[in-house]
Amino acid sequence: MTPHTADHTDVRATNLAAVLGHLRADAPCSRAAIATGTGLNKATVTSIVADLITRRLARETEQTQNHVGRPATLLVLDGSAYAAIGMEVGLRGLTAIAYDSAGGQLLRWHRSGPGVGATPAKTIAALAALARRAISAVHASGRDVLGLTVGVPALVDRDGTVVLAAGLGWRDVPLRQDLVTALGRPAFPVMVDNDANLGALAEHRYGAFAGTADLIQLSGDTGVGAGVISDGRPLRGGHGYAGEIGHLRIQPDGPLCGCGRRGCLEAMASLPAILARLDQADGPETDPQLRTDQLVRRAEDGDTATLKTLTEVGGLLGQGISVLVDLLDPELVVLGGSYAALGRWLAPAIEQELTDGALVAVNGRCQVVVSAFGHDAPSIGAVARSLDRLDSGHLPAPPVHPQP
Amino acid sequence: MTPHTADHTDVRATNLAAVLGHLRADAPCSRAAIATGTGLNKATVTSIVADLITRRLARETEQTQNHVGRPATLLVLDGSAYAAIGMEVGLRGLTAIAYDSAGGQLLRWHRSGPGVGATPAKTIAALAALARRAISAVHASGRDVLGLTVGVPALVDRDGTVVLAAGLGWRDVPLRQDLVTALGRPAFPVMVDNDANLGALAEHRYGAFAGTADLIQLSGDTGVGAGVISDGRPLRGGHGYAGEIGHLRIQPDGPLCGCGRRGCLEAMASLPAILARLDQADGPETDPQLRTDQLVRRAEDGDTATLKTLTEVGGLLGQGISVLVDLLDPELVVLGGSYAALGRWLAPAIEQELTDGALVAVNGRCQVVVSAFGHDAPSIGAVARSLDRLDSGHLPAPPVHPQP
Repeated sequence: MTPHTADHTDVRATNLAAVLGHLRADAPCSRAAIATGTGLNKATVTSIVADLITRRLARETEQTQNHVGRPATLLVLDGSAYAAIGMEVGLRGLTAIAYDSAGGQLLRWHRSGPGVGATPAKTIAALAALARRAISAVHASGRDVLGLTVGVPALVDRDGTVVLAAGLGWRDVPLRQDLVTALGRPAFPVMVDNDANLGALAEHRYGAFAGTADLIQLSGDTGVGAGVISDGRPLRGGHGYAGEIGHLRIQPDGPLCGCGRRGCLEAMASLPAILARLDQADGPETDPQLRTDQLVRRAEDGDTATLKTLTEVGGLLGQGISVLVDLLDPELVVLGGSYAALGRWLAPAIEQELTDGALVAVNGRCQVVVSAFGHDAPSIGAVARSLDRLDSGHLPAPPVHPQP
Repeated sequence: MTPHTADHTDVRATNLAAVLGHLRADAPCSRAAIATGTGLNKATVTSIVADLITRRLARETEQTQNHVGRPATLLVLDGSAYAAIGMEVGLRGLTAIAYDSAGGQLLRWHRSGPGVGATPAKTIAALAALARRAISAVHASGRDVLGLTVGVPALVDRDGTVVLAAGLGWRDVPLRQDLVTALGRPAFPVMVDNDANLGALAEHRYGAFAGTADLIQLSGDTGVGAGVISDGRPLRGGHGYAGEIGHLRIQPDGPLCGCGRRGCLEAMASLPAILARLDQADGPETDPQLRTDQLVRRAEDGDTATLKTLTEVGGLLGQGISVLVDLLDPELVVLGGSYAALGRWLAPAIEQELTDGALVAVNGRCQVVVSAFGHDAPSIGAVARSLDRLDSGHLPAPPVHPQP
């Protein structure tokens, strides 16, 4: 264990992160307001803001604020110089999303395929092609790309190797390394992370309750997985595998699960399990987004079987969420992926189960909400992950691309 | 949300913490070895070590180390000036343990009572009396007391109020505040924390696998509770209630639990549940330590019913631990409290269940071990908690007591 030590570069980075965080939460704001909000002295704020303006990470607006004395110029984040890319390898295809450093969306692409049966090599080639196009598009907008992160429905180790992705049929695929090789740019920052972890990060960073220190994002398009933010940081566990809730046994004599046991949460409350309950598991459509849309339409039309099933599944999910709440004591549980669209019908039974079942929920008042990001959450979280270094106050090299 | 900012005091504290951490892990060691181990430059190490020596937190030994060049004086932690006190309010009575700042045990007292039926006021009066005696004893040894922490089998909020302690029959007891009042020293640092959280901290800080970044300590003397260290820090959750595993439903048609439902882990695998399975629940003895000793003797004598029950309970605990492992992905699960003494008989079934059941365990190689601290773990963790500020590099005021 190497002890963590600090030097004066760390101090600058910590303070820079605080100023960026204040701007993200409260801009437009004055230098004086930043000093008050962060506890830094005005000279430090002035110097850091000057740095941020030089890098085009912040800019002065035309607006001023009149208190007593001379008017203060207001500052906002500037997204004109840098951006980051988030991607997802999902069962429904590949997604690429880019945000500029001020949180503005630059592009959002989805392509179906290569499909579950494809070899990792084929999928990685398609991923690299999409990544190159996204990088080019960001460059064409006059911005440098600070990094690229890929979310996968998988156990991912700290080196970015996919240890096991049951849904994709992958095992021991060195995704990060292969993607770096395919991109042909060894120095370009590429990361790989679990899709549920990234979904939680998306909520923590850009969601309706951004900044909530303890939250869980739950999704269930294939397996059921939880991403956890604990005390403001992603909960990863000793090997990077935390958040596996899918094989929680809800009903010992329940339906057979892919893991060989019976009655796992995944076998009872994932999207495929919901469809199986409604005898719709074998339909021609495999894209979870489109299948969810079909369910939503049936529920909106008042279809009795659909409504009954969603209430039952809400109860089962509620049992799983009760366990999460008792163990992790979050302030917020966000229903993501397909659960987001189905949330209106799932939530009442979930909340009932939480009231009846979870010890902590009763005392701790945990709120259950629906994600606004739907199936984009992992890619949006991947963008946030690519911005980690900047957000922790490590400035990038000055922008290469001239001001447009 | 107030952003965290850094100043140069923080830099000094971070570096001081790193030097203390290195000494804790590797002493006796030279200044040069500390510099190499922490990455700090030699002038910084020399200055920090001088500070530590002045405060009598470190001292030079007679030993020297001969490399090339002149011999280096070796340093060790010095526990002669400061100590901390950890206490526990348990169903078996009150415990007080004091360690000096170098990790040497100064005292370990246990008194039975006031008992489960006692009012909070009576228990707090007894606790305050024991605390005063412990403080006096530490002072008599020539040391200042840096703080006192009390562990309770309870949901404890951030202010040190016991929200709910089912076993003690307490609800909404402002324990921290009442204890400060009873001690009559408003400035004296008193903290209150959940016993399972503190048990985990004891392992993280002083256990056989000290320093393991992701570990869980499980105990079950009354309810079943887990304390969690995640990424080197206690996992507390949004309201301080994380780690509640006792009401995980293992068997929907199992025995009735105190919570009103059936088949909770607590109703099936806690010490009282083990005794109930053996028709020994109503014996005259209520101290978990003594009851565990009886079980151990029976198991050692080869009593068939006892061995069969412990194997069954090991399997049930294994199901609970599988859920913890899947959700939290620890490197280490420590069996604490009564489970420590019973570990030899519980562990095989636990490990079997982990191999069969937990997705992460198979991939992540989580180790199950037995605590060396038994029922002292919460008090030892309470000592560690009282030393938090020092360990994070915040030096106490120079010692009041003269060198003995």
